[in-house]
Amino acid sequence: MPEFRTGTLDQIAFLEDLVAAGLLAPTGVHGVYARGGDFERVRLALDALITRTAAPESPEPLHHPPLFPREQLERNGYLGSFPHLAGTVFSFDGDESAAAEQLALASRHEDWSAFQSMTEMVLTPAACYPLYPAVAARGPLPERGLTLDTGDAYVFRREPSSDPSRMQIFHMREIVRVADRETVIEWRSVWRARAEELLRGLGLELELDIASDPFFGRTGRLLAAQQRDQELKWELLAPVAGRPSAIASSNYHQDHFGEIYEIATAEGEVAHTGCMAFGEERVTLALFSAHGSDLRSWPAEVLAALEL
Amino acid sequence: MPEFRTGTLDQIAFLEDLVAAGLLAPTGVHGVYARGGDFERVRLALDALITRTAAPESPEPLHHPPLFPREQLERNGYLGSFPHLAGTVFSFDGDESAAAEQLALASRHEDWSAFQSMTEMVLTPAACYPLYPAVAARGPLPERGLTLDTGDAYVFRREPSSDPSRMQIFHMREIVRVADRETVIEWRSVWRARAEELLRGLGLELELDIASDPFFGRTGRLLAAQQRDQELKWELLAPVAGRPSAIASSNYHQDHFGEIYEIATAEGEVAHTGCMAFGEERVTLALFSAHGSDLRSWPAEVLAALEL
Repeated sequence: MPEFRTGTLDQIAFLEDLVAAGLLAPTGVHGVYARGGDFERVRLALDALITRTAAPESPEPLHHPPLFPREQLERNGYLGSFPHLAGTVFSFDGDESAAAEQLALASRHEDWSAFQSMTEMVLTPAACYPLYPAVAARGPLPERGLTLDTGDAYVFRREPSSDPSRMQIFHMREIVRVADRETVIEWRSVWRARAEELLRGLGLELELDIASDPFFGRTGRLLAAQQRDQELKWELLAPVAGRPSAIASSNYHQDHFGEIYEIATAEGEVAHTGCMAFGEERVTLALFSAHGSDLRSWPAEVLAALEL
Repeated sequence: MPEFRTGTLDQIAFLEDLVAAGLLAPTGVHGVYARGGDFERVRLALDALITRTAAPESPEPLHHPPLFPREQLERNGYLGSFPHLAGTVFSFDGDESAAAEQLALASRHEDWSAFQSMTEMVLTPAACYPLYPAVAARGPLPERGLTLDTGDAYVFRREPSSDPSRMQIFHMREIVRVADRETVIEWRSVWRARAEELLRGLGLELELDIASDPFFGRTGRLLAAQQRDQELKWELLAPVAGRPSAIASSNYHQDHFGEIYEIATAEGEVAHTGCMAFGEERVTLALFSAHGSDLRSWPAEVLAALEL
């Protein structure tokens, strides 16, 4: 088992409130919750607001399921940086007697893992990852590059915790820019202002942070420092149960994916990529944390911004 | 690897048309596709139509993510009936040197499965499965039982195929009734007419079939025959690339889940359960198969029914 992170008393009490209000329901696995009607209404209203905010750019929708080809994970560097967060899909491939043995073990809640073998799929670790091989398969980028929209895509992170804002599976909505270096850098600064405006319009108290990803191990600490020094990642944080929680973020990958997938601009240069990501459950939690668990008592201007 | 099912020439040609029209995009894994803008518009319009159709019953929304507690799979009978279709989630739990070894193997696309161990999660095999433990946790049912709505939930089936209507991961939308025997039986017959009307209103040619689930092995053949004899499952089929494809179905589980999870009616009897399921990608494929790949040339009454 990976390290279990206990939530603070406030986080655990907040989760209990959400459950009592029918907004989330526990499943018995830490960080895996069912969403009740009002939670989902807010999440989908937020998703629609992001759609309206991005509309002037006409991003191309390309919605991937939560499974990602294992071969891509083996290529894209994730297992070097985040081996502890990855989830892989295994399945059964035996005969009837093996099925009977597996069933006997499983029925007693004993270890049946020996009957499972690795498939060609893993759980999608980031909403934008499947876009890069898809874009590469099309050949050189059009003039001015591409802007894509992942939709509300499920992603997986192996981080069991009793903090409700640290889920193992959640929706990440990403708008992704694939173009030349200058275009991507400029686009990210436009979205920094736009994302801040969108989230402030929902009555959230925001902090901007130059941040780093949770890289694994000692080498990881160097990578994190480098990422921070070069300002490749920023996050917008809002309070959830009294603690700042990263609800939106933007990464600039430089030519990392352009190199791996040989994505070329119309001018024949290696493409750069950047993304704007919203953690939909986290934004929704920040909203319930700020405005209370009863949607009907939320400020009128917040409901209006969400068209609720 | 499980048996790979090759699609017919018509099915493969249909998939190529969908890809050319930007409706689906391949990922490199059979049965795992990205959905383009118009495909997703139709799927979500169908989802909204199901919501409007179910609204008079006011089903309670309870939306689960695509991960399900492994412990529940071990309890609910799935590994006896469908071991070949299940997917389990594994993850890494080693130190830095193990991570380096895993990475070295993975980078060469060699077998790194020895570094992965079984987690407490599996992929959700049916949208309604997580509802039963959730309902059981609430204690006895209210008077008249419960009607629940899974929302557009991802489910996993280990069935690699080049037939586009046989996906490994897709959205199943289920309305689920948990009540006494007579109520569940009556409710299913109401939905049989209602589902048929909904789908005929979209211009689909339907066939009704008393069906069975794809149970595993020799015992499975007996279970399938029994299910058929007792008419526990019906399906609505519509043509996709010239072959009838099950696009909606209803199962009557009798007291199977009521017994396992000890769900009791208000009167203290073991609860019965039944469900009405729509395979959203399959309905969407049937629509593109019937009306063509260009949404703008669909019959006006179909677009009107979908509010598109």
